[in-house]
Amino acid sequence: MRHATTDSAEETMDAFAAVYTTYGSYISVLLGEHGDPVFRAKMRKIAEPVVIKRFNISSENETEAALKTEYVISAALGTIVRWFEFDMPISTRKLAELIIGFTKHGIL
Amino acid sequence: MRHATTDSAEETMDAFAAVYTTYGSYISVLLGEHGDPVFRAKMRKIAEPVVIKRFNISSENETEAALKTEYVISAALGTIVRWFEFDMPISTRKLAELIIGFTKHGIL
Repeated sequence: MRHATTDSAEETMDAFAAVYTTYGSYISVLLGEHGDPVFRAKMRKIAEPVVIKRFNISSENETEAALKTEYVISAALGTIVRWFEFDMPISTRKLAELIIGFTKHGIL
Repeated sequence: MRHATTDSAEETMDAFAAVYTTYGSYISVLLGEHGDPVFRAKMRKIAEPVVIKRFNISSENETEAALKTEYVISAALGTIVRWFEFDMPISTRKLAELIIGFTKHGIL
């Protein structure tokens, strides 16, 4: 994997990871297979402005910016839920690095 | 955006886009805010082996490979649903290119 350098996007993920350490079991159930799609939509709404700012998503092309934002949020939420279902096999910091690395540089 | 070259990952997305053109309204409702998380889980299970093969996700590190696979599937499903909610403002082919570009090379 590529390691992301420390930056504001990583700080945001770290903050989220900290919340997740406390509330992760609730969040994962609500986001998971037997969860609540309305909760998922609320999480998305909260994450949206943060992702746009932290990943510096420009609005030169509104459609592409919106789809890019969705891509980032969906990827992050899905990966975090899966990580939790796996019983958190890596640290929150490493998870954050992984997600940010994929998001910034791709999975290849 | 970066344009992905034509390859097997793109063919897979194209095939998915073709299915989506026919069944998109059903799929989007089932995957969306008022949808069915069990359907989402089923879609994920179907997509998993395809994504692993098409994006050539190696299993040298099992945890990372599983999280990477989840990242790709969640990102793609979320973006496709959003695109549908936006009334498909770009073609399925362009959507496929966009998602594959983000996945392979990142959003930056």
